Amino acid sequence: MLAHRLIERKRDGGRIEPGEWRALALAYAKGHVPDYQMAALLMACFLRGLDRGETAALTEAMLDSGDRLDLEYLGVPRVDKHSTGGVGDKVSLVLAPLVSSLGVAVPMMSGRSLGHTGGTLDKLESIPGMRTNLSLAEARAMLETLRCTMIGQTPEIAPADRKMYSLRDATATVESIPLIASSIMSKKLAEGLTGLVLDLKRGSGALLSDFDRALELAGVMIALGTDHGCPTVALVTAMDRPLGRACGNALEVEESIAALKGEGPPDLMAVTYALGAEMLVLAGVASTTDEARRELEREIASGRAAEQFQKIIEAQGGNPGVVDDPAALPQAAHCEIYAAPRRGFVARVEPKTIGRAIVEMGGGRTHMDDIIDPSVGFVITARPGDWVEAGEPLATVFARDRTGVMSGRQALRSAIVIADEAEPPLPLISHRISSAGVEAYPD
Amino acid sequence: MLAHRLIERKRDGGRIEPGEWRALALAYAKGHVPDYQMAALLMACFLRGLDRGETAALTEAMLDSGDRLDLEYLGVPRVDKHSTGGVGDKVSLVLAPLVSSLGVAVPMMSGRSLGHTGGTLDKLESIPGMRTNLSLAEARAMLETLRCTMIGQTPEIAPADRKMYSLRDATATVESIPLIASSIMSKKLAEGLTGLVLDLKRGSGALLSDFDRALELAGVMIALGTDHGCPTVALVTAMDRPLGRACGNALEVEESIAALKGEGPPDLMAVTYALGAEMLVLAGVASTTDEARRELEREIASGRAAEQFQKIIEAQGGNPGVVDDPAALPQAAHCEIYAAPRRGFVARVEPKTIGRAIVEMGGGRTHMDDIIDPSVGFVITARPGDWVEAGEPLATVFARDRTGVMSGRQALRSAIVIADEAEPPLPLISHRISSAGVEAYPD
Repeated sequence: MLAHRLIERKRDGGRIEPGEWRALALAYAKGHVPDYQMAALLMACFLRGLDRGETAALTEAMLDSGDRLDLEYLGVPRVDKHSTGGVGDKVSLVLAPLVSSLGVAVPMMSGRSLGHTGGTLDKLESIPGMRTNLSLAEARAMLETLRCTMIGQTPEIAPADRKMYSLRDATATVESIPLIASSIMSKKLAEGLTGLVLDLKRGSGALLSDFDRALELAGVMIALGTDHGCPTVALVTAMDRPLGRACGNALEVEESIAALKGEGPPDLMAVTYALGAEMLVLAGVASTTDEARRELEREIASGRAAEQFQKIIEAQGGNPGVVDDPAALPQAAHCEIYAAPRRGFVARVEPKTIGRAIVEMGGGRTHMDDIIDPSVGFVITARPGDWVEAGEPLATVFARDRTGVMSGRQALRSAIVIADEAEPPLPLISHRISSAGVEAYPD
Repeated sequence: MLAHRLIERKRDGGRIEPGEWRALALAYAKGHVPDYQMAALLMACFLRGLDRGETAALTEAMLDSGDRLDLEYLGVPRVDKHSTGGVGDKVSLVLAPLVSSLGVAVPMMSGRSLGHTGGTLDKLESIPGMRTNLSLAEARAMLETLRCTMIGQTPEIAPADRKMYSLRDATATVESIPLIASSIMSKKLAEGLTGLVLDLKRGSGALLSDFDRALELAGVMIALGTDHGCPTVALVTAMDRPLGRACGNALEVEESIAALKGEGPPDLMAVTYALGAEMLVLAGVASTTDEARRELEREIASGRAAEQFQKIIEAQGGNPGVVDDPAALPQAAHCEIYAAPRRGFVARVEPKTIGRAIVEMGGGRTHMDDIIDPSVGFVITARPGDWVEAGEPLATVFARDRTGVMSGRQALRSAIVIADEAEPPLPLISHRISSAGVEAYPD
């Protein structure tokens, strides 16, 4: 009867109270509220909206439907980073070892690829033997020894959110700001963080391509974090082109390893340093982002960051040898260089086209239970604004068969637009958002 | 994928095309679309609405998800009556035998009680032995011999509607005009009618208590019927007080039998004759409602209408003896007269309070699988506007135990309001609505 009453009230534009959200989330997690009632409620929430108080109460309710990491006893600051999702975005793979190597705990729980965007778990699992489905106990043990774990949402964490998330996917109720914000924040707050950095993607390849909506989402998440004693800061970064050069699971691991050795492409290094600096300031181990940035650079130059990644891989059952020899990663059977069909400026490298091609080539999912081929993808060296000559190599396609090569070539033909003129791309990092408001990001 | 696409489109205020409704209804009836997707779609329909074309397409799609009665071969006109639901509304029990006795086929498929309103099937089943779950073949056989059947929606008829109806009940998506109209009309059109009369209840006891919304509903149903070659007419009748005196299943059967013998209370007889006259005119067996009314009166006076009810009961396995001796109906163990607590005018007899008390006393349902006690209910002789003296009998409570008597007494105390003045109640029949528009009903 509770569910029926709440559906009716939200349907008519009313408000659901904190105690009601709590009772509902618990009942749903336990299977006492059927999916069809939750689906009707989610659609009513999607269309009628939730106010800030309701969004906070829903977040809290999903958080309380399960366990938390409770890491206070570690005696160190605990920070994490969340990206709203993009193509070529392997920043998590670099940041988790890098920041934890500096003595800050990074209890990173990530997701899988869905739609055109990649997922950290799928990238990690391209490392032979690597497990991401650790139990909460295993994760705690790793955090004690390495101050880092890189895992998926365990069944104990926010089970109501887990069930609601897959239901939203099936019922076209994903793109709702309060539902997105509460889903992300219930998981992040369950990590017991003392600080959180959001990477808010902007541009045609972002999940929320409307920038105003993305800003609204950031505002809601920052308020949720701050209200829960977890100061939250967001940087707005460009997703009108892929980040870095590698797109595709194993290829992105390889590029992340390069980045941990200081050899990543400039845009990836810049975003990694910017987000990492915010994490260190939130953690209180640096007082300015400049100071923090120097620490990050030192940690990479010393080799300790790459070594920390090796330890993490080993602790999660993976082959740590990939850090020294990336050839130990799965290799695509076929590769082909894609050359510029004409001379001109690179006007666009469309991330959505690239992301969708990876799915089509077997490197992503259209259903949650699809099996991924980690080896496929692209390395795209052409950047928007570059001048290229006809026949100059722009990218390499990595595929498992001839059909994949053809798909990849076709995708590159449509994704990489060469023209006589090129509009400047979005600034790599354009804004910094905190509870104090939105400010332009300093160069 | 179809369901997801349609949910998304309706969520954003778009239109679902006829072929899509058809594919969806078929897939849902077959279990290929899960309830949670249909629930999300129903909520989107509830909040975004359906235009007339979509409502017609949904009606058609639900109709085509199952069989139809196809009664043309009978060679007689086929009419039915549908009531939007009320308290004490036993008109169907009188009209089906009465109109079919005049040579017109009445393939009546009715529903069960839910909420505070009664259901024809539950009333019929208070007759010992009476079956209402006839197969389509049994129903056809009865229509051939008696031109009448009084049954529930068979599994073959509009199965998509059947499933959607119970889902709507669970997901707070009932009170939507396009969803109500398409649900009712898909079933009625499956009866293969040549005419349909709607009894549109008005007042506090009606399911849609807002009269403007009720008029809108009537307009949609009349358009749907007319467009499907089934001319449809509605009369607006009062439901600010119960219809007739008896409220409760067996008690209403007893009053219906009295009505078939010409001894029903004046309001019940007036509504029965008015609706019956419209049915006969639609059937073409009378050219004016005055002429039709005289035929109905003659049929009752001759005893043939009551005799026809006896035959229908017998054909459906019931004890036809109840028509001659209503004492053969289930009798309540306890009854108590309720007397006026003060002198004054009867200002109100609140139907919702009466209907809810019957549910509480065991004569209605809060869940579809509740078992009903047919004997309980009320006979209320007080009518709004009557002058009563303190201690004068106003009603009788029929209950299965002392608790039921107490509930009933309490309900009467709150339902029957006695005051120094009384506003006039709603006119018994106020409007007649056809495809030509709304007109005041002539006295």
